Amino acid sequence: MIVPRLIERKRDGGRLEPEEIRELVLAYTEGRIPDYQVAALLMAVYFRGLDRSEMKAMMEAMLESGKRLDLSRLPMARIDKHSTGGVGDKTSLILAPLVASLGIAVPMMSGRGLGHTGGTLDKLESIPGFRTALTLSEAEKQIARIGCAMLSQTDEIVPADRKIYALRDASATVEVVPLIAASIMSKKLAEGLTGLVLDIKRGSGSFLPKLEDELELAKAMIELGAAHGCPVIALLTAMDRPLGQACGNALEVVEAIDVLKGGGPPDLIEVTMALGARMLVLGTVATSLEGAHTLMRDAIASGKALLKLEEIVAAQGGDRSVVRNPARLPQAPHQASFTAARAGVIQSVDPRAIGYGIIQLGGGRRNMEERIDPSVGFVISAKPGIHVVKGQTLATIHARTEGDLAVGRSVLEKAIVIGDNEVAALPLVSHLVTAQSVKELA
Amino acid sequence: MIVPRLIERKRDGGRLEPEEIRELVLAYTEGRIPDYQVAALLMAVYFRGLDRSEMKAMMEAMLESGKRLDLSRLPMARIDKHSTGGVGDKTSLILAPLVASLGIAVPMMSGRGLGHTGGTLDKLESIPGFRTALTLSEAEKQIARIGCAMLSQTDEIVPADRKIYALRDASATVEVVPLIAASIMSKKLAEGLTGLVLDIKRGSGSFLPKLEDELELAKAMIELGAAHGCPVIALLTAMDRPLGQACGNALEVVEAIDVLKGGGPPDLIEVTMALGARMLVLGTVATSLEGAHTLMRDAIASGKALLKLEEIVAAQGGDRSVVRNPARLPQAPHQASFTAARAGVIQSVDPRAIGYGIIQLGGGRRNMEERIDPSVGFVISAKPGIHVVKGQTLATIHARTEGDLAVGRSVLEKAIVIGDNEVAALPLVSHLVTAQSVKELA
Repeated sequence: MIVPRLIERKRDGGRLEPEEIRELVLAYTEGRIPDYQVAALLMAVYFRGLDRSEMKAMMEAMLESGKRLDLSRLPMARIDKHSTGGVGDKTSLILAPLVASLGIAVPMMSGRGLGHTGGTLDKLESIPGFRTALTLSEAEKQIARIGCAMLSQTDEIVPADRKIYALRDASATVEVVPLIAASIMSKKLAEGLTGLVLDIKRGSGSFLPKLEDELELAKAMIELGAAHGCPVIALLTAMDRPLGQACGNALEVVEAIDVLKGGGPPDLIEVTMALGARMLVLGTVATSLEGAHTLMRDAIASGKALLKLEEIVAAQGGDRSVVRNPARLPQAPHQASFTAARAGVIQSVDPRAIGYGIIQLGGGRRNMEERIDPSVGFVISAKPGIHVVKGQTLATIHARTEGDLAVGRSVLEKAIVIGDNEVAALPLVSHLVTAQSVKELA
Repeated sequence: MIVPRLIERKRDGGRLEPEEIRELVLAYTEGRIPDYQVAALLMAVYFRGLDRSEMKAMMEAMLESGKRLDLSRLPMARIDKHSTGGVGDKTSLILAPLVASLGIAVPMMSGRGLGHTGGTLDKLESIPGFRTALTLSEAEKQIARIGCAMLSQTDEIVPADRKIYALRDASATVEVVPLIAASIMSKKLAEGLTGLVLDIKRGSGSFLPKLEDELELAKAMIELGAAHGCPVIALLTAMDRPLGQACGNALEVVEAIDVLKGGGPPDLIEVTMALGARMLVLGTVATSLEGAHTLMRDAIASGKALLKLEEIVAAQGGDRSVVRNPARLPQAPHQASFTAARAGVIQSVDPRAIGYGIIQLGGGRRNMEERIDPSVGFVISAKPGIHVVKGQTLATIHARTEGDLAVGRSVLEKAIVIGDNEVAALPLVSHLVTAQSVKELA
């Protein structure tokens, strides 16, 4: 195998054989092919795509590169939720404890920040002591005991995907439907699920701003799941603005805890509950969406869901007191309000600008090696379509230095546009995609 | 500077600012940006291109990354020839001593094999002891003394280009007009030339098989040269089949020596002399092309050119006896003839297949780290258009093992096509491009 010739073939619009893809993925995982060749290949794939058989070969090679969770002895359904990534998207932090508190096993393997989007692991690790690098055996035991584990991909689990995912992030090759589908499904199938709910983000802040790409992604993942005996359904949700208000690792944990306590911003609640209801129905704990919603409301009202989060934090070495007292999370030393420069209507709150702004403040990565500061970010109350008066507070900036507050201010000046027109944002939950059909919900 | 965002901008068809390109090139050279990010960027450039100002910024940043030869005190013209790369192209090995023997300084900085093409340095290093890694000061002294030095890019000279060139080779991002132009001109301008002759290869075995790209490349380089006070002219020459017969490092040195001794294949002689004549006229040693040809014929007939090669070999630590007795070069332990499977007309001899075949035999690199075996390759007497009978010898394979002979045979079976139609190959020297015009010569 002469790697430059394979890159060249893909670059020129050719097709790679399943066996070539398998060999490439495994050789790269074992360090026999350098990063730079794979980065060039991924950029060629960005322009040329992968067909269904190439995508399937890639997913299967990644799955084959590691071990899997064995949860087959558990009596209950094993359901996970996966989002394609957004800004302010902390639904996983809420859904894992909420759904697990209702008797479904949730083996949730998550990622780190990718491009402009945040990552569940980075958010969890803002909890002092919280350890996401569980071994498979630790995760299996924890799930058997408390119904949930929130873990990273260690070397054991789909190491190929872990390595490729990090490379894509650092080489601007994230936004490719078949790569996203193969990456997500290799991880999810390694979790030994009985069902999966996908949250496919739409709009300017998603990796795939075009509806046709989002539907294509949903279908590709449903197909990969079906080929491996895992039923998958997908909801398309809005990412033309950040979800909820908090954007930044520790800030998002605070907001997720708010929701589990019965509070939190309404848009975040709506999307989270829509996804949770599908998980509960897929896991046959609820027989209808209405029933599922009632179960979730009760689990929050009774404190059962919050208690489950405490159990998870404690089980994974974190400071459980954070759940009752989120002020114990890392706090940025400098905070400042950001106010409206004029009266008008919020035209847009650009999630990409916000996401990259968090990176500029030190809350995300510029390359694979960088460490992040969990405390920094934005809490943005402004939403597209709302009317504001001059001087009204639109957001709070959380930063490490005075200088960074100025950086944050300039980020928000570009990200939050005030104008005079009425605007219509995307519906929060717009489409349901199943193996059978695509249904518009709003 | 967030590198993934720059990659993303180029990927999406945007433009990089000259200052961004400069910072990228210098940071990469200093190891502050990893290979994989630059590889991804180069592949994005493959698809999106660079405009003239981006190309100029890149060339200038590369030039700025290192030191230059200072030959300004020499009384004579300083002229180099540069080829865009081909298979069997050993004209540099002939022209450097030939032109230097006629009183022009030839500071010749060459490259290694790139993609399917061979590299002058790899060929020279097949001469036992030959050292191409001269320091600038060694090269300056040698040129002052004997009129010529054939050197590699050491860390002193355009280190940025050296690093990017190696990365392009290993990541299938060689065939990009502005990258080729910037790479060549950064090296050539670091040589302190008073003039440059370009050999732009045409046809299936060139990096740019389309005539419009070749003309575009010629114009880009002429423009870059003019901006830095170096007159440049370009000849377009045929690379739809290998040049001469020998393909492989030591084998090509043998053939180059043949030409300096008055022998050698006619196609190789024609292209070499066309380029040499332009060098002599540009260096004002000859006032006409005819006069230049006479000078070169005399230099070969008198043994002056061959003696100059001996001087160069000796000056650079090589075994000078090789020049009189090429059998002292490394020889492959296994050799076999390859014969015509049927009677007919040679339809094509595919240079790419031959070039990659040499790599398969161990005579070229699969990645930046690999060492090569100088002895292996092919000597191919078959040329497109000639009539052959069944069983006629078309080539000789030189290989390390019996198994590699079989590999070589299968390479030639694909590379040399015999059919029934009369065929017309490209004219050996087809176009002259100057700052003023493009002229068809054949």
